[in-house]
Amino acid sequence: MAHDAIEDPILLTDATRNVSVKEWKISSEEAGIAPDGAKWSVSKRVLAGGRQEGVEIIDVDNGVMKFTVAPTRGFQVWKANVGDLRLGWDSPVTEIVHPQFVNLAERGGLGWLNGFGEWVSRCGLESIGPPCQDGNRTHTLHGRINYLPASYVEVRIELAPVPRIVLRGVVDESLMFGPQLRLTTEISTEIGKPALSFDDTVTNLSDAPQEMESLYHANFGPPLLGPGAQFIAPVKKVAPRDSRAAEGQMKAWNVYTGPHPPGYTEEVYLMELHADDAGMTDALLKSADGTKGALVSFNIRELPFMTLWKNEATAKSGYVTGLEPATSFPLPKPVERDAGRVPKLNGGESYSSKVKFSALISGAEVENAIASIGRLQRTAPKVEISPVL
Amino acid sequence: MAHDAIEDPILLTDATRNVSVKEWKISSEEAGIAPDGAKWSVSKRVLAGGRQEGVEIIDVDNGVMKFTVAPTRGFQVWKANVGDLRLGWDSPVTEIVHPQFVNLAERGGLGWLNGFGEWVSRCGLESIGPPCQDGNRTHTLHGRINYLPASYVEVRIELAPVPRIVLRGVVDESLMFGPQLRLTTEISTEIGKPALSFDDTVTNLSDAPQEMESLYHANFGPPLLGPGAQFIAPVKKVAPRDSRAAEGQMKAWNVYTGPHPPGYTEEVYLMELHADDAGMTDALLKSADGTKGALVSFNIRELPFMTLWKNEATAKSGYVTGLEPATSFPLPKPVERDAGRVPKLNGGESYSSKVKFSALISGAEVENAIASIGRLQRTAPKVEISPVL
Amino acid sequence: MAHDAIEDPILLTDATRNVSVKEWKISSEEAGIAPDGAKWSVSKRVLAGGRQEGVEIIDVDNGVMKFTVAPTRGFQVWKANVGDLRLGWDSPVTEIVHPQFVNLAERGGLGWLNGFGEWVSRCGLESIGPPCQDGNRTHTLHGRINYLPASYVEVRIELAPVPRIVLRGVVDESLMFGPQLRLTTEISTEIGKPALSFDDTVTNLSDAPQEMESLYHANFGPPLLGPGAQFIAPVKKVAPRDSRAAEGQMKAWNVYTGPHPPGYTEEVYLMELHADDAGMTDALLKSADGTKGALVSFNIRELPFMTLWKNEATAKSGYVTGLEPATSFPLPKPVERDAGRVPKLNGGESYSSKVKFSALISGAEVENAIASIGRLQRTAPKVEISPVL
Repeated sequence: MAHDAIEDPILLTDATRNVSVKEWKISSEEAGIAPDGAKWSVSKRVLAGGRQEGVEIIDVDNGVMKFTVAPTRGFQVWKANVGDLRLGWDSPVTEIVHPQFVNLAERGGLGWLNGFGEWVSRCGLESIGPPCQDGNRTHTLHGRINYLPASYVEVRIELAPVPRIVLRGVVDESLMFGPQLRLTTEISTEIGKPALSFDDTVTNLSDAPQEMESLYHANFGPPLLGPGAQFIAPVKKVAPRDSRAAEGQMKAWNVYTGPHPPGYTEEVYLMELHADDAGMTDALLKSADGTKGALVSFNIRELPFMTLWKNEATAKSGYVTGLEPATSFPLPKPVERDAGRVPKLNGGESYSSKVKFSALISGAEVENAIASIGRLQRTAPKVEISPVL
Repeated sequence: MAHDAIEDPILLTDATRNVSVKEWKISSEEAGIAPDGAKWSVSKRVLAGGRQEGVEIIDVDNGVMKFTVAPTRGFQVWKANVGDLRLGWDSPVTEIVHPQFVNLAERGGLGWLNGFGEWVSRCGLESIGPPCQDGNRTHTLHGRINYLPASYVEVRIELAPVPRIVLRGVVDESLMFGPQLRLTTEISTEIGKPALSFDDTVTNLSDAPQEMESLYHANFGPPLLGPGAQFIAPVKKVAPRDSRAAEGQMKAWNVYTGPHPPGYTEEVYLMELHADDAGMTDALLKSADGTKGALVSFNIRELPFMTLWKNEATAKSGYVTGLEPATSFPLPKPVERDAGRVPKLNGGESYSSKVKFSALISGAEVENAIASIGRLQRTAPKVEISPVL
Repeated sequence: MAHDAIEDPILLTDATRNVSVKEWKISSEEAGIAPDGAKWSVSKRVLAGGRQEGVEIIDVDNGVMKFTVAPTRGFQVWKANVGDLRLGWDSPVTEIVHPQFVNLAERGGLGWLNGFGEWVSRCGLESIGPPCQDGNRTHTLHGRINYLPASYVEVRIELAPVPRIVLRGVVDESLMFGPQLRLTTEISTEIGKPALSFDDTVTNLSDAPQEMESLYHANFGPPLLGPGAQFIAPVKKVAPRDSRAAEGQMKAWNVYTGPHPPGYTEEVYLMELHADDAGMTDALLKSADGTKGALVSFNIRELPFMTLWKNEATAKSGYVTGLEPATSFPLPKPVERDAGRVPKLNGGESYSSKVKFSALISGAEVENAIASIGRLQRTAPKVEISPVL
């Protein structure tokens, strides 16, 4: 049986109607849809055992790229790969930890780290950055959205304009006397292509103005990360976050040298990027041998602030780098507000952002990406030596 | 098949015997019991999706009034209605949030607000009121009972003395070096009547004395709440909680004027009421046009302190008023203890309280309620201008 | 059908392979294995109702001793008994509380007490003792391991060298920028014997050094605890923890006199024990009439520090005594570190400890234990009068 399309979205979760499909699968064979002969599949299941008890995940295989989305964890992407090229890292946290086992206020507001093992999470929506006091509000590390379960989940298999798989989710961060923000996200992938895209909208559900912050925390370990790997982007200006990051006097801030022995502590760099006339820009993590890469593409009008997190610890204690396009820098929210980097939405207003992650699996692809970034680098980067904080 | 009664209670949950019926239903048709031809039903189910994943609820329809009890949330009443007359409000929290997603200590002890969307919750049992330090104890907003799951649930369908539906629940707030208090509650409704009653008993399970506090947090938005709506009760004395509540110099403290634009902050009034010789009293929330109302009836010997909470914020950011009969005022527990407003139970001793909520659906019913309250108003209310805090 | 052995371990939980068997049972009849005619059984089920909703437990009956292990609660032993001799106590907490209902940071870091009702729990693995600030780390009471669910569970029925039942569990305490410690535990019991053993290994999963602490919190109420009951051990030195414990000038620190009226507060004694040449030692809780006892056997090279906790409160408010062999004393971790009592494991390194609990059910058995302890008491105990803190 061959279809031109699957007409209707497949509804998996809808809290408003008490719909919750726990186990489900569709594949190119069943659907009779196989563009260019591609074999693809999408399946949902519930994990069990340890701290992942009850976590609902959706596994996608587009024929070339495989990835796992966790609706229970704010619709994050837990892991992905294109053949041998793993997108993700070796976290001390190996299970997709269910929010029931996480207390964000623990350890002085650092509880977010109890379940931090994913490839791409979102930080926000009320705040990003370190725990801080903000007037009479207490913010915990990177906000709540990464530990809120989706209230709505649907899957669409589209044939036009291009054949693609779309996971649509709605996650509400709403509470009394607090944020009333809705994340509506579509994570999509073209069948047979080594890339996936986030298409996210944050909506102020209230009729009063509300602030928001959003950051994509994309994390990479080996095989992309390694001594000699490089972060490459059309940097307009860059500064070290603190004295630790400033230690190297910004001489090789974008080059990786680890893993380092115990005692190493993280380095963070804050930057703004050049973009094309439409605001589009790219940032690349290039493997040491130049044959592999991960390209992050987004619009600086939506995500004007880029953070690079280098945590070149020992191989087994959280060796990772984060590429983090965002509405704001991950500094304490009062700092961001004072700097004018906290978007404010009127009642009913929305803020949209798109991010595309592409896996580059040949030297030629990496070269092309570097050349493209080079064309965006209109002027030399302005490199600050003094730390921001 | 017609019955005179359903002989035995229907057991739905009993943690001591590991009984847990997740899906269940009974109706007038099945039971063959239909007093005066009334159609009624009671059903239990488990919610799924978003933050309500795993919440067990019991839906009751007595033929005239419908309401939903959430055993998972301290046997609270999430919502109710009599035809068009909704008892409840439009909270930013639209899901019945499961305790697994709530951390009471979050946001400086304000975590209770993460799931605050219900019509009637209980506050307590160790403490009510704002987060506070109380010697070496730390109390979070409004205590724990509203986020504790019931250990025992049964349903009874009674024919005599009047046909009614009774939900019985037991919720334990007990921990080592802390409270050992058991709430045994019966939420009942006469078949075909627009009212429901709480009949609650708090028991000290210990053999050592224990303090307790209990408050019924009954929350109303439109259609009852609106500009011109009024709170009417036989007030003996009333005082503004703080300088904010004192701003209007108590000239129209019982009249509603909102919703107000962003920037508005809540007003709280603390009062004691007159009652009849048996201690019975009534408090009324009257709609602006006087055709609808909610009447709260209770005994001031059980619940001597009444709080009115006005939160006339924008329509979508928590526009609500709370009528809150209680053992104490919702002030920091040390303040209440010093004022002699914290009941202390000896080992094994119990404290009982009953509250009845009636929906008034005609001008005549509202007039009757006002007249009845008028008869209780033996002397003019003593109105304090100065704030309590 | 008779077997010589059950060849393979029975796998009940494996998070890495998403295996989770919720209901399961095996018995001597089914297995056809009944050494000396003993009837035994092992079964797994999931509890429901109240705060125990979702807790997975394994009930073991070895023909003489019955006990319940809770994989969901760090593989603790909730309760045990040998006929009339109950090992355990009457806690205010009567349900095996699921971690979803516990917030360790609550009440100033005392949230651990919300579910404290078990016979034997483990404290640790990052820290034991009271809540404290430790540099930039915040430790909550007795650490996390007692509220982490097992990621791996298997059951083995072995015939050689002795017929025994073994429950094997793996519990990971791992988070980013925090501990990366794995508890691998075997709780075993010889068929037909009134004893069970813990055989635990804590492994540093990182490649960087990590500290750890581990304490066995074994708790006893009646019938062992009562006025005239005694703690007997080959004490090398003992000291009162604080001024409260020092009140009695150490004259009868090892004798029980309660239950006491409200107002009583706990007493804690810190000690080191003598041992045999292999390091093995015993500590005994003897009933007042000398006909019953609980013997705790362990190796002081693994568990060099012993704590006695006396909480002789009223019968219903947590009347209990704790015998607590450990790697460290349950004092604030910085105190323990300064005293050199915090083990540090290199990357991949492990720390093993074994503890055996034997129920003594006759005067003769108790006499034998006392005599054995007497032989270990080579020199008179050094009794400190001044408190440690």
